[in-house]
Amino acid sequence: MLFVLRKTIIGVMGPGDAPTKLDLSNARKLGEFIAKQGWVLLTGGRNAGVMDEASKGAKQAGGLVIGILPTNEPDKVSQAVDIAIITGMGSARNAINVLSSDVVIACGMGAGTASEIALALKAKKQVILLSEDDESKAFFKKLGKDKVHVVQTAEQAVELAKKIVSH
Amino acid sequence: MLFVLRKTIIGVMGPGDAPTKLDLSNARKLGEFIAKQGWVLLTGGRNAGVMDEASKGAKQAGGLVIGILPTNEPDKVSQAVDIAIITGMGSARNAINVLSSDVVIACGMGAGTASEIALALKAKKQVILLSEDDESKAFFKKLGKDKVHVVQTAEQAVELAKKIVSH
Amino acid sequence: MLFVLRKTIIGVMGPGDAPTKLDLSNARKLGEFIAKQGWVLLTGGRNAGVMDEASKGAKQAGGLVIGILPTNEPDKVSQAVDIAIITGMGSARNAINVLSSDVVIACGMGAGTASEIALALKAKKQVILLSEDDESKAFFKKLGKDKVHVVQTAEQAVELAKKIVSH
Amino acid sequence: MLFVLRKTIIGVMGPGDAPTKLDLSNARKLGEFIAKQGWVLLTGGRNAGVMDEASKGAKQAGGLVIGILPTNEPDKVSQAVDIAIITGMGSARNAINVLSSDVVIACGMGAGTASEIALALKAKKQVILLSEDDESKAFFKKLGKDKVHVVQTAEQAVELAKKIVSH
Repeated sequence: MLFVLRKTIIGVMGPGDAPTKLDLSNARKLGEFIAKQGWVLLTGGRNAGVMDEASKGAKQAGGLVIGILPTNEPDKVSQAVDIAIITGMGSARNAINVLSSDVVIACGMGAGTASEIALALKAKKQVILLSEDDESKAFFKKLGKDKVHVVQTAEQAVELAKKIVSH
Repeated sequence: MLFVLRKTIIGVMGPGDAPTKLDLSNARKLGEFIAKQGWVLLTGGRNAGVMDEASKGAKQAGGLVIGILPTNEPDKVSQAVDIAIITGMGSARNAINVLSSDVVIACGMGAGTASEIALALKAKKQVILLSEDDESKAFFKKLGKDKVHVVQTAEQAVELAKKIVSH
Repeated sequence: MLFVLRKTIIGVMGPGDAPTKLDLSNARKLGEFIAKQGWVLLTGGRNAGVMDEASKGAKQAGGLVIGILPTNEPDKVSQAVDIAIITGMGSARNAINVLSSDVVIACGMGAGTASEIALALKAKKQVILLSEDDESKAFFKKLGKDKVHVVQTAEQAVELAKKIVSH
Repeated sequence: MLFVLRKTIIGVMGPGDAPTKLDLSNARKLGEFIAKQGWVLLTGGRNAGVMDEASKGAKQAGGLVIGILPTNEPDKVSQAVDIAIITGMGSARNAINVLSSDVVIACGMGAGTASEIALALKAKKQVILLSEDDESKAFFKKLGKDKVHVVQTAEQAVELAKKIVSH
């Protein structure tokens, strides 16, 4: 019996509430590009903000979308999530998001997103940061050193993810 | 934009250590039958016992296998897992296994499996019990009443799961 | 600098909903006896059923009560809890309850309680079972072998806990 | 039956690895001052860095110390912890640390600490930041707005915590 290799999982993390317009358009592109690479997209699973847009982008491009949900409320799951993992653990699920991702892409900034970047660095994961927020770039670059990569576009984020996963 | 419905997830729970021969052969069949229904198989993800056999059965039949891992040890993941969700939470991940499953099938018995059946009942999930152990049948039948269904074969388990998910 | 030894923690687990009258009177006594031994009582922390009665028993006897809460709802915390640990994790917190207890006493039976006994056995903890339910005694005695101790009264439970913690 | 009010819990979070000398001396003072207020100290529980020093400071001043441990390794628990809550959940326990604290004081900076500040803000908790790191002050002040309070000394941190808990 021959098994294929386990699928590559790329986590896209970003604000569910109050994302910027650029965050949302970046999220949509990230989802699309991730799907086109044949990677699985992992998000926080809710039908809000960056999670929802990234999931829709991946889904429309024919990708597989895993959502790691904080609660057990069916009406809060993004319609573009294929597989809903229900944790019922609130923000403690953020630790699962990053442990399960081969690379973490942060798209935009907020308290939940910041916790995910920090948890990813704690777990020695590579983090790609796509944000308009200068203070977050300065802080996470100092905190994570060569594990934090600041990029300007969704294209750059996915190009960099390719390099990281092929290592 | 039109999205397909979220995938049906069937959880197969059973002993990683010290399964019986019948548990293992049932697990393999359960994985196979679940894949043939077009359902996603969810297991505890390790390369041991019932988890591993169910995963292999589903994988060989062309199914998709999600493993919810208790630890972050790459060499403990079943080779037949497509998507590894790394919780790093030990047995606390058992709660995620059952919350994420549309139906829980318990195949064999052990302390971890018993916790999963109990957590499933607490979360008001339907549980299908396929076990040689009489005391477990008597106990869980009393505990879970009409949410616990005792069956004799993997075929019966999957037939019953079909009825439950089509409700 | 000299430190005293870490405090002994005894977990009392039992149904929050639908406990029997005997469960409640046993819980009250367990809390009282645990406090009189100078032990810390650990419960699931809610103001319901066995958790609440055990907490009140310990508190009235001058003991210290730790409640490990499943949710972040202040109005659901037992008034007799001194220290509320808020997990926000639902039933996944059951794993914490048993890992943090030197001995687990199950007082009565229900789905949550059954999950805690099973998780305790998985973690190789000693479990004292004080229940009117014959099927649970037969099942857990078979599952846990010499780690499960069936007793008839709260007094017997605490006498046995003394032997276990002094080992 | 009359119950006293639930105890006030102050969480002190800071690097376990590579704290600065000032972080350690601040942590020791924070523990001492918190104990002298009659508050319970909550830390990450390990015998390393800021957790360990804060715990020792509180313990020497006669306080009660709760440690929320990431793992189940007895030799990694600070000797100054009175009550060890064993989560077995790795960094997912950071969410519990902040949910259980009435006020979170961050003493120094690191990936784990940053995740705790961010999780605290996500949970709408007040955070007091005592750090030599300018980028972290700028970032969290922007992220948390009026929920983040930058102070210069342990004395100021505890004075501010008094104001917050008396609200």
